[in-house]
Amino acid sequence: MARVFECSSTGPIVETKAGKIRGFRIDSTYTFWGIKYANAKRWEMPTEVEPWEGVEDALSYGYVSPMLHKESNRGEIMCPHRYWVKDENCQYLNVWTQSLDETAKKPVMVWLHGGGWAAGSSIEQVAYDGENLSKFGDVVVVSINHRLNILGYLDLSAFSDKYWNSGNVGNADIVASLQWIHDNIAKFGGDPDNVTIFGQSGGGGKVHDMIQTPAADGLFHKGIIMSGMFYRDRLIGADSPELNKAVGEKLMAGCGVKTVEELAEVPYDRLAEVYNAVAAEYAEQGIRLSQMPHKNEWFCGDALKYGFREHAADIPVIIGSVMAEMSFGTPIVRKHELTEEQQLAILKEEFGEKTDTLVALYKAAYPDKNLTDLLLLDTAFREAGQAFALERAKLTKTPIWEYIFTYEFPIEDGKAPWHCSDIAFFFHNTDKVVVGNKPGVSDKLEEQMSGAFVNFARCGDPNTDTLPEWIPDEDGKLHTMLFDEECKVVTNHDLELYKEFMPVAPDPRKRNRKNISLH
Amino acid sequence: MARVFECSSTGPIVETKAGKIRGFRIDSTYTFWGIKYANAKRWEMPTEVEPWEGVEDALSYGYVSPMLHKESNRGEIMCPHRYWVKDENCQYLNVWTQSLDETAKKPVMVWLHGGGWAAGSSIEQVAYDGENLSKFGDVVVVSINHRLNILGYLDLSAFSDKYWNSGNVGNADIVASLQWIHDNIAKFGGDPDNVTIFGQSGGGGKVHDMIQTPAADGLFHKGIIMSGMFYRDRLIGADSPELNKAVGEKLMAGCGVKTVEELAEVPYDRLAEVYNAVAAEYAEQGIRLSQMPHKNEWFCGDALKYGFREHAADIPVIIGSVMAEMSFGTPIVRKHELTEEQQLAILKEEFGEKTDTLVALYKAAYPDKNLTDLLLLDTAFREAGQAFALERAKLTKTPIWEYIFTYEFPIEDGKAPWHCSDIAFFFHNTDKVVVGNKPGVSDKLEEQMSGAFVNFARCGDPNTDTLPEWIPDEDGKLHTMLFDEECKVVTNHDLELYKEFMPVAPDPRKRNRKNISLH
Repeated sequence: MARVFECSSTGPIVETKAGKIRGFRIDSTYTFWGIKYANAKRWEMPTEVEPWEGVEDALSYGYVSPMLHKESNRGEIMCPHRYWVKDENCQYLNVWTQSLDETAKKPVMVWLHGGGWAAGSSIEQVAYDGENLSKFGDVVVVSINHRLNILGYLDLSAFSDKYWNSGNVGNADIVASLQWIHDNIAKFGGDPDNVTIFGQSGGGGKVHDMIQTPAADGLFHKGIIMSGMFYRDRLIGADSPELNKAVGEKLMAGCGVKTVEELAEVPYDRLAEVYNAVAAEYAEQGIRLSQMPHKNEWFCGDALKYGFREHAADIPVIIGSVMAEMSFGTPIVRKHELTEEQQLAILKEEFGEKTDTLVALYKAAYPDKNLTDLLLLDTAFREAGQAFALERAKLTKTPIWEYIFTYEFPIEDGKAPWHCSDIAFFFHNTDKVVVGNKPGVSDKLEEQMSGAFVNFARCGDPNTDTLPEWIPDEDGKLHTMLFDEECKVVTNHDLELYKEFMPVAPDPRKRNRKNISLH
Repeated sequence: MARVFECSSTGPIVETKAGKIRGFRIDSTYTFWGIKYANAKRWEMPTEVEPWEGVEDALSYGYVSPMLHKESNRGEIMCPHRYWVKDENCQYLNVWTQSLDETAKKPVMVWLHGGGWAAGSSIEQVAYDGENLSKFGDVVVVSINHRLNILGYLDLSAFSDKYWNSGNVGNADIVASLQWIHDNIAKFGGDPDNVTIFGQSGGGGKVHDMIQTPAADGLFHKGIIMSGMFYRDRLIGADSPELNKAVGEKLMAGCGVKTVEELAEVPYDRLAEVYNAVAAEYAEQGIRLSQMPHKNEWFCGDALKYGFREHAADIPVIIGSVMAEMSFGTPIVRKHELTEEQQLAILKEEFGEKTDTLVALYKAAYPDKNLTDLLLLDTAFREAGQAFALERAKLTKTPIWEYIFTYEFPIEDGKAPWHCSDIAFFFHNTDKVVVGNKPGVSDKLEEQMSGAFVNFARCGDPNTDTLPEWIPDEDGKLHTMLFDEECKVVTNHDLELYKEFMPVAPDPRKRNRKNISLH
């Protein structure tokens, strides 16, 4: 039977601080797409939206930040996308909620999208749709767009006070969205005093950033970092005032303008073309230009490099990652038909004499997994995630829970989980993203995973009746929830493994070029 | 319970003429996204793809033709979109089927997307997804991308024999896709001798084009034109060899090249920029440049202007349109709360002394409809649709069935159906496009509408047990199926109405600027 649809002259209408907006209702879920939460001139800090008369429609998604490169046209069945129209005017958010009662005080979950700090959007992946999570968890789900790449993270502070924080205005948009949520979310049934931010990949990085940003204090209360901690220095060749100034000068020269104020008027496509050429020039010298937030008086910088702010101790955190993050295109051909000897033979081609040590540690960590999956073990997020969790647990008793998603997907005769493959499970969206489906198995896991996030958002504890007891990490002790067909909690299961594995880990960029099979 | 997902090293794999491809299965439906059906150099005729070794994945949609303008970011809840990555290399198609048995001989339904001949894609609208229709009707659904706008329909024949058909290569891509279907669809369980092409808006226009294109003869057997017939001269200011030559010269000058071969190497974005400037120049002189097929030895031209080809008599056709096509943004505020006097007062503001005549004819045509909907009555497609159907019925006994979609949507306190609003019903996709949902009502109508198309595809007759008897049009007699909460067939119900209405019809471009209400 068709789901009920409602959108009429009488509602659903919500009165925000700036004016009335109208969304729509599907069955029990009220939805508002494309609410403008701030305005901004290029490279300047965002400002509040001007009040309006009458009712504005929130029935279409808001513009997405322009990007430097084409979006991906590959791997769609593994990660379905929803691309959208781009424009610099991109400070928009979406809301899904089960109530418009101002006194309802439902937990609020704010999604920060991935794509590094350079790409993506609040709706880029089909898995980001908030309807199911709102309905399943009776929570208010918000997702936001903000400025990206050179619009959000180009440090031009050397040239003009006007652009003092241009290296962070993308993150300043996020803070502005949290301020909007603080001011308005009660009207959508949400509790402004119980806001959890969660994000994956770059979005997880942004959760970290908000913890390290004083301007965001009080605007959120808990954080979930999914596959979002990594050693930033490994990705950024350099981020110094001198370099940033030199890049700015090259951009002005390339665009044929004399001042950064004039540069702010150059059409984005032209600016992007020049920037890509400048970046390519630096890349030839082995310098990768940063499109991430820059440490300054507004942003306290990477916690792993500069240390946690004191305020971090007030924020309960869940941090986790996926077993085989960067292994999109690397099926291991019929791995379950290989004997242990054959599996070892494949590993020996990669690891040589170190194979036995690695295999012993891997078997201890993952006794039920195929040995060949060791080739695909995450090298991007887990190591930094361990460090983040250990450091946090040492500093404060405020809990940090930690997980790894190890569920094997049915695709390719059984494939270890890849970057982004967990999102649909946490969002309760495996009806829309079907690649992980095993009837009766994936349904249960989805309930467990989204249930944990929802309970954490509700009361600060991810434990539920459907999971084994999930203990927070302690000083020197990682208690890791393995989300899998049978969820379980293990202690320090992969610390030794990673110490041995990281120095010899295969380069995922090479690995992705071909399938792995027995020769 | 989760739907079953399958995609392994063993299948689903199909051997096409050029090589093996692998798709995926969700429950009973085998799906292949992004199959390359042809290659083409800019402005040249498409060629067959080269054979390959091994298995190619068909797990991501294919590139979409680049476009001259940004896609729409409005009206999303009324028409949800799925935008995708653009590239000139865009000859891709998608297949959904219930069988991979070469002897199954299921009916084949090929979707030609809308967006004029200038925009859109095989997946541009969420409503175009083929899974539900394939499953519901046990048919093979195919949807295709092809070259658009200046890549597909720029007549440069004056400059070089190489580009003799550049004004039609977008349509030549469609013919190439039909050839691919003819050669390969049996392997997907389809019957190459029972192919129905269907399309809406520009896609309906392309169905007409294929009927008028000798190269497509034998590659399809039936056609469905949804909101796709219009008087082309009204949209094209001019399409003459002299004009087309002048445009080509201006493009070369603007791009700083001397030959059309060099023009073929100019990056699309630059070419588009120059073309848009040239088009704006002509627009100032009141000339709208054509981005539609051009009549020549390959394409026999608009049937309404140049007459039907003899072969048209071999093609059973369904033709129809929507009651209030171009009325996206024109809610009539609480129209069902207005008295008849109030409704008439609103009409009198528009129609003055002609109101009584129009209202009498409108009441006879649509006795159950709100009078104010007369303001929104389609001016784009119905009149030409009447002419097409009458002309065809006069020429041949091969049946032509004809319909109008008059179903009132629940949005905006009851809104007459707008352009594209019928697509989800015909595709059995109201679970994905929910704006028309009235539980128990829309479900039934969806079954009736998609059932009619499926039965037409199966056996050439749209009649089913769930519909009143649908009689083909006759010479001088239009028997029109009104798809609505209660479907019914009426005869010549709106011929007089349109004769009186068209000369005084409100300009939809003005109309869309504001809501309509009682002053």
